[in-house]
Amino acid sequence: MTKDNHRQQFPALANKAYFNYGGQGPLPEPALDAIYQGFKGVQLGGPFSAQVLTWMVQEAMLTRGAIASELTVPPETIALTEDVTVGCNIALWGIEWKAGDHLLISDCEHPGVVASVMELQRRFNIEVSICPLAATLNEGDPVAVIADNLRPNTRLLVISHILWNTGQVLPLAEIVKVCHEPPLTPPCQGGGQEDLSLNQGDRQEDLSLNQGDRQEDLSLNQGGGQEELPAKNYKVRVLVDAAQSVGVLPLNLIESGVDFYAFTGHKWWCGPEGLGGLYVSAEALADLHPVFIGWRGIAAGTNGKLFGWKPGSQRYEIATSAYPLYAGLRSAIALQHEWGTIEERYAEICRLSKYLWERLSELPDVECLRTSAPEAGLVSFRLMNKMPHKELVALWEKQGIMVRTIPSLDCVRACVHYFTTEAEIDKLVGAIANQLV
Amino acid sequence: MTKDNHRQQFPALANKAYFNYGGQGPLPEPALDAIYQGFKGVQLGGPFSAQVLTWMVQEAMLTRGAIASELTVPPETIALTEDVTVGCNIALWGIEWKAGDHLLISDCEHPGVVASVMELQRRFNIEVSICPLAATLNEGDPVAVIADNLRPNTRLLVISHILWNTGQVLPLAEIVKVCHEPPLTPPCQGGGQEDLSLNQGDRQEDLSLNQGDRQEDLSLNQGGGQEELPAKNYKVRVLVDAAQSVGVLPLNLIESGVDFYAFTGHKWWCGPEGLGGLYVSAEALADLHPVFIGWRGIAAGTNGKLFGWKPGSQRYEIATSAYPLYAGLRSAIALQHEWGTIEERYAEICRLSKYLWERLSELPDVECLRTSAPEAGLVSFRLMNKMPHKELVALWEKQGIMVRTIPSLDCVRACVHYFTTEAEIDKLVGAIANQLV
Repeated sequence: MTKDNHRQQFPALANKAYFNYGGQGPLPEPALDAIYQGFKGVQLGGPFSAQVLTWMVQEAMLTRGAIASELTVPPETIALTEDVTVGCNIALWGIEWKAGDHLLISDCEHPGVVASVMELQRRFNIEVSICPLAATLNEGDPVAVIADNLRPNTRLLVISHILWNTGQVLPLAEIVKVCHEPPLTPPCQGGGQEDLSLNQGDRQEDLSLNQGDRQEDLSLNQGGGQEELPAKNYKVRVLVDAAQSVGVLPLNLIESGVDFYAFTGHKWWCGPEGLGGLYVSAEALADLHPVFIGWRGIAAGTNGKLFGWKPGSQRYEIATSAYPLYAGLRSAIALQHEWGTIEERYAEICRLSKYLWERLSELPDVECLRTSAPEAGLVSFRLMNKMPHKELVALWEKQGIMVRTIPSLDCVRACVHYFTTEAEIDKLVGAIANQLV
Repeated sequence: MTKDNHRQQFPALANKAYFNYGGQGPLPEPALDAIYQGFKGVQLGGPFSAQVLTWMVQEAMLTRGAIASELTVPPETIALTEDVTVGCNIALWGIEWKAGDHLLISDCEHPGVVASVMELQRRFNIEVSICPLAATLNEGDPVAVIADNLRPNTRLLVISHILWNTGQVLPLAEIVKVCHEPPLTPPCQGGGQEDLSLNQGDRQEDLSLNQGDRQEDLSLNQGGGQEELPAKNYKVRVLVDAAQSVGVLPLNLIESGVDFYAFTGHKWWCGPEGLGGLYVSAEALADLHPVFIGWRGIAAGTNGKLFGWKPGSQRYEIATSAYPLYAGLRSAIALQHEWGTIEERYAEICRLSKYLWERLSELPDVECLRTSAPEAGLVSFRLMNKMPHKELVALWEKQGIMVRTIPSLDCVRACVHYFTTEAEIDKLVGAIANQLV
């Protein structure tokens, strides 16, 4: 299939040069048709009936299956969610935080996820620290930086697989390895540290409950009782915001060892807005509690009595969703397979982002954040000494060229997908060059 | 407009006798068209662009406005959610529970909400008790039952406005009044009780953290420290599951005084599945913390730094949704206004449910759960000494008659909307009578 023929399946691409795949991908025509037919089918057979319920269960199963196949995981590890942020929140709030636990988050996470972490800190009195990964874009080792920032009381690391602001691809398997391996300190010393930090945690919580009047009691306890504390598993869990990686590069989550991988269908997969998911590894599932709970997550007996959670990650699904979107996402994923394998598509993304990066690098007064070719489809750059990026982006949108600003880094971000054309890139580069004249 | 003309707007009604409005309402054709056009418009103008972002913000604003107008509340009190269950969870988890707090829930709540309450109990070590409202369907006073079950440490009452299993309409304003009024015990005595229960709560949490070894310390503390406990507001908040009431009867939530009112668009409003909302009163907002947090709930500065929550209930919205559904819901609500005012529609619902109830009551071996005419559109009944209800419902679905079972009460539930016809009801009653021959 030629790229031009392929592009004709995406109505959004007809009237513009599009570089906002990291925001939202264009919905293919067959995907929209599938959504429309889904809504009609629900009305024909229901809307509320055994027939539609059967269809709904089947649609959810097929969609978890299609997603699982892309992530190389079993279908039962997938929960369908409204979006990537809900997936992150399920993991963040599902951990049974104790005061004094430590959460490590990178300095390149999306504001919504950062805000949720800040609220966890306030609510459960946990320690939060920020891991400086932005500075490793061109030199330095993100794995070493993360390892240096882990603490004996760290329970969760929050990172993105591909950083949404700079496009850096983090080495997921290596990061998970340093988080999951036992502490480097000898067992007895490590154990001592852990007990200490656990004690500190308990004390903080007690303090907040008791306004100071029991501090003495605690210090009386400090010496003797350590061996009575419950044994705890200090393996650091890893939550990955996969908003920019799913649909971009080959994934094998089992091999990576990651615990939680939250994603959306509406960016690089080009599915409809309002449908994403969360992968929870079989091991991590055991101690991740459902938080927002509804009928989809629970298993009920025939007399309507509750008897527990659904097996697998389905327990994190909540309640009624726009089920007709499910076929839309599957249709979008299938269309991408028609063009090529994920390896072929990723190679084409990298070829095109390199072309964009090279052309930008040739321009005077344009600074690409990366000093070498990108590892994925995101290319971030700054125009020096010109009008504010926000105004430039608005101007280009009027010309049918769509890029976005990243306010926190004061830069512009342009994304290329495998079906981006050189002509589109040339148009963008030309528009940028015009601003530099 | 005649009812027949009106019904032609609902494709689902063409090929069946439909009585599952409490499960899902039929989507009107113009609503589906609006959804389809919404998806197309996003592609034409974006999908990710300033133009589409503006449209999205506008769509959300219009939708909160349309909903707010139906509930007689200001638009800023409305959060848009994926469904009613998410709305309930926002309120349930957003309260800063302390061990020993008490939550009172009726015995007629939906299993998903019950499961969430059970998990709150486990996680935060709160007291949960169940309030027997089912028994007040035909006699007795639900307000008195609730008042009797409140405790000095009750922080939240969870009820439905219209009970999904029996169709009983609860007197919302009176219930809120008993929950919001100060305790009847004299202040000094009441205060003492509260401190005691707070102390008990703290102790439970300490015990679970410390495995018993600090019990003595606590008993040492029990006498002296009460006056040092922080002052607490013991007004009982009221969370209402409005799945069966929104779109059925006239609402004035400000007058009712209710704190949290969670609803969905896809049942009695006949909007698309996957869109609902939560009303949070201006007063209750002050101490209801966002839990699942994303970019839609936070206000960010121009440099991308966080600076707080969105004003009003928008802070409880999470992230990307299927925005094209918004116009679909507004279209569905507008269509209902074309037929009549909410007072007229409610009167028609009651007229038709009375007709159904009367015809069922005439049948031998049919027992309606209510001994007088229904107060809304839900009619629950049992067929005595016949094949199991589940099999009957499956049989009727094959005949194009759609009702459902309520397993926990071993009954069948048939719902009538204002556009139900007597002919449909006669068809259902005929099918039931056939089973009794």
